[in-house]
Amino acid sequence: MPTEKPGALDLTGMQRAVRWYPPAYDIRVEAAPIPQIIDPDDAIVRVTLAGLCGSDLHIYRGHEDVDSDLTCGHEIVGEVVALGSSFHPQVTGRPELYSTLRVGDKVVSPFTVSCGECHFCRIGFTSRCVHSCLFGIPSLPGGQAQFVRIPKAGGTLFSLSALQYSATGIANRDLSHLSDSSLILLADILPTGVFAAMQALQHPKIAPMLTAKPYPLGGHFPAQTSSQGQAAAALQSEDRILTIAVVGLGPVGICATISLLDILASLESSQGLVYQVIAIDPLEARRNKMQAIYDAIDSTGKGGGRFAIASIEDGKNLAANWTNGAGCNAVLEIVGNNSALTLAYEVVRPFGIISSVGVHQEPPLPFNGRDVYNKNVSFDFGRCPVRAMFPIALDVLLKRQDVFGGVGTDSSLIEKVVALDQAVDMYKLFDKGDCGKILFNPWI
Amino acid sequence: MPTEKPGALDLTGMQRAVRWYPPAYDIRVEAAPIPQIIDPDDAIVRVTLAGLCGSDLHIYRGHEDVDSDLTCGHEIVGEVVALGSSFHPQVTGRPELYSTLRVGDKVVSPFTVSCGECHFCRIGFTSRCVHSCLFGIPSLPGGQAQFVRIPKAGGTLFSLSALQYSATGIANRDLSHLSDSSLILLADILPTGVFAAMQALQHPKIAPMLTAKPYPLGGHFPAQTSSQGQAAAALQSEDRILTIAVVGLGPVGICATISLLDILASLESSQGLVYQVIAIDPLEARRNKMQAIYDAIDSTGKGGGRFAIASIEDGKNLAANWTNGAGCNAVLEIVGNNSALTLAYEVVRPFGIISSVGVHQEPPLPFNGRDVYNKNVSFDFGRCPVRAMFPIALDVLLKRQDVFGGVGTDSSLIEKVVALDQAVDMYKLFDKGDCGKILFNPWI
Ligand SMILES: NC(=O)c1ccc[n+]([C@@H]2O[C@H](COP(=O)([O-])OP(=O)(O)OC[C@H]3O[C@@H](n4cnc5c(N)ncnc54)[C@H](O)[C@@H]3O)[C@@H](O)[C@H]2O)c1
Ligand SMILES: NC(=O)c1ccc[n+]([C@@H]2O[C@H](COP(=O)([O-])OP(=O)(O)OC[C@H]3O[C@@H](n4cnc5c(N)ncnc54)[C@H](O)[C@@H]3O)[C@@H](O)[C@H]2O)c1
Ligand SMILES: [Zn+2]
Ligand SMILES: [Zn+2]
Ligand SMILES: [Zn+2]
Ligand SMILES: [Zn+2]
Repeated sequence: MPTEKPGALDLTGMQRAVRWYPPAYDIRVEAAPIPQIIDPDDAIVRVTLAGLCGSDLHIYRGHEDVDSDLTCGHEIVGEVVALGSSFHPQVTGRPELYSTLRVGDKVVSPFTVSCGECHFCRIGFTSRCVHSCLFGIPSLPGGQAQFVRIPKAGGTLFSLSALQYSATGIANRDLSHLSDSSLILLADILPTGVFAAMQALQHPKIAPMLTAKPYPLGGHFPAQTSSQGQAAAALQSEDRILTIAVVGLGPVGICATISLLDILASLESSQGLVYQVIAIDPLEARRNKMQAIYDAIDSTGKGGGRFAIASIEDGKNLAANWTNGAGCNAVLEIVGNNSALTLAYEVVRPFGIISSVGVHQEPPLPFNGRDVYNKNVSFDFGRCPVRAMFPIALDVLLKRQDVFGGVGTDSSLIEKVVALDQAVDMYKLFDKGDCGKILFNPWI
Repeated sequence: MPTEKPGALDLTGMQRAVRWYPPAYDIRVEAAPIPQIIDPDDAIVRVTLAGLCGSDLHIYRGHEDVDSDLTCGHEIVGEVVALGSSFHPQVTGRPELYSTLRVGDKVVSPFTVSCGECHFCRIGFTSRCVHSCLFGIPSLPGGQAQFVRIPKAGGTLFSLSALQYSATGIANRDLSHLSDSSLILLADILPTGVFAAMQALQHPKIAPMLTAKPYPLGGHFPAQTSSQGQAAAALQSEDRILTIAVVGLGPVGICATISLLDILASLESSQGLVYQVIAIDPLEARRNKMQAIYDAIDSTGKGGGRFAIASIEDGKNLAANWTNGAGCNAVLEIVGNNSALTLAYEVVRPFGIISSVGVHQEPPLPFNGRDVYNKNVSFDFGRCPVRAMFPIALDVLLKRQDVFGGVGTDSSLIEKVVALDQAVDMYKLFDKGDCGKILFNPWI
């Protein structure tokens, strides 16, 4: 079994991997074959860190109806050790990594495959690529292992090394100080948090609070300047207070809260926005982690808005009290069960938005047609297009190194980095919500 | 019982009204008390025309769980015959109609009360006014009668006469050629159709098609200019083709289709948008009406986009064939039952939008949490804020007098104007979908 860095590596044998067996709660750390290039677009990546994530818990708990064993994990930072024949410097007309990626490059992989070439990828909806595939399912072994195969790697991967060869955009950033444990947040949870926040803030029903112009807003439509357009005058500040609840403070919820506060703080200074954020989780450990992180963020990252961390009951009360009973303009649902969706519906205001990134299962949604009609609710559901969110998430990552940069302190999001051998215990611990983000280093 | 114009009117006696009795399908045209001013903010309006609407059918069919009799109707054009004491020329700090509205003025009433003074009204979400009340329920007698009481009338009503006193905005339009049968479309169905179209077109997930910039778009967020931002290049025209389905071609669905085509045609000329619209209804009579109207619209109102009118099966096939199997970018659901929501879900593309204005009932929504996650669907549900949509709807009304101006021709949306006495038959006819929009004139 390989334990050395590439060069000394034998890529033909067996490796250590975290594996799950049906029906539920059965994690085993065992030997598995090292994945091989099976398609010209593949890359093989030597995993330097792999994340444990709330999404792993859906499979762990047996909620995903998976009936065969699999190699877990979908959050991957590593180093390219082998490339398929599609990669060579003269490639044109394909995503740029097919010509620039090299063995030895440092890469982050989003948690799903995206080709970079289909309509969905080109338009930025990369999580619904026609070749989309989640890492850590029976047909695509995951990253909680020493090596992982990345399909459509020229589209899927984000190469930190390749940035140095490019002269545009974020290529000009100095990323050399970013640790692997910081970079791995780009594989899933930070882009997903940013996505949850942006879905809400970009929604046209939120525009009145951001622009002081009443609904329905301009855009491609004529502005509202009528006599009897009661709503045509610029909105007063009392109508512009934006109240947002975050439901669920696991690692993704914390990332969403940090991203949300960062964006709101910048809107506060650029547009005089007044905002309030209520971060809700039933678990005290999760609330404490959120509090420690909030305390560590400097004022440019959280602005002057009101902020509270609350249990479910306290959260409901705050949502009412801070809004004169109206409820929240938007709710970010970052849990993935019906109790969270019910809470989101309860605390959202009429004409409010529920931005849901929780992974939901088969039970019916906990509201019927009359409920959603009666509140004029808007919903956004689904999987984060991580590949498309990368540049924005990278911005937040760079700005918030105070909370994303460290490991194991009170105010760091990442609780610990452990060996694969500890996976059985770590899954148990994370399942209880008794800890923050856990990472595996497959080489210790 | 009064039959003359105001002046000669006795406002204390009885009037003729269309009344509904539980549990279902029981319409009676009978005498009812003329409503009186009971609050200083009230106005009494002599109804010149009242509409029969798909929303009346929910009550008619007994789907709304109403258990006492009521006076029907919520689409009202008329003339002010009495005003409460809140109305006088010196009023300040209230919606302008409290100072400008006069007995004799021509008014349109949205289908719900909105005060113009609460947070929801100020922000433009007038259909969720804290004083919101639907006309045509047991506690607020509706407009299919000779007179109707309008609560919070200075906020609720739109006065065509008062426009003459104002110097701004739409006040400069010449509205004198608009007939009452055209104006009544502003009470509900035209603003609702515009709203259905705008909810879809203003959604951030549609922005890539309109702007050629991939998701996630600018707005308040940094633009995406990275190396490895495969999606950062301007979108090619093949990725920008916008395909929208309209599900349901009752009067509201037809208004939505006309409004949608109008907006798309203007985006075609201003931004080179390429679009396709599929209008779906199972009923041949409704499809034929849509076709006759489409044929009557001049090219500025429909542009060069592909357009088809289809049965449900044909609609599904077109949605697949016109998009290489991807599905529609947005679906306007304008029916109000689960078969329509199911169809909308089926034909919508991943990362698509379902803009639902159908009035839904208590059965569970026909998709579960996994369905909506797996397609990254966005939904907008609820009641049109008619009062806030007025200026935009008025624009469409003025532009499309070719289809909104006439009565009883093949290409007019309005099929006929009848006496209240014909209500029993008209409800039956409309319930079957065998006719277009029907209006009541309570004075013939
Ligand atoms: N959409 C995407 O692309 C995407 C990406 C990553 C993760 N996810 C999903 O996001 C969700 C959160 O991920 P995580 O890693 O933070 O998970 P996690 O399980 O660590 O955290 C979930 C948190 O929600 C809390 N919670 C449970 N019920 C609640 C309720 N009713 N109200 C408020 N809080 C409640 C729990 O106490 C827990 O702290 C999961 O469903 C995960 O699968 C989605
Ligand atoms: N949200 C609002 O503010 C608002 C305002 C007005 C009306 N509405 C609602 O809009 C809806 C439409 O109103 P209308 O007056 O046009 O009603 P309508 O009943 O005249 O028309 C509905 C049409 O839908 C068609 N239909 C039924 N099932 C279908 C399916 N599965 N697929 C496609 N079409 C189907 C019917 O054949 C019919 O032509 C109603 O639910 C009404 O209550 C809502
Ligand atoms: Zn994850
Ligand atoms: Zn793709
Ligand atoms: Zn109506
Ligand atoms: Zn109001």
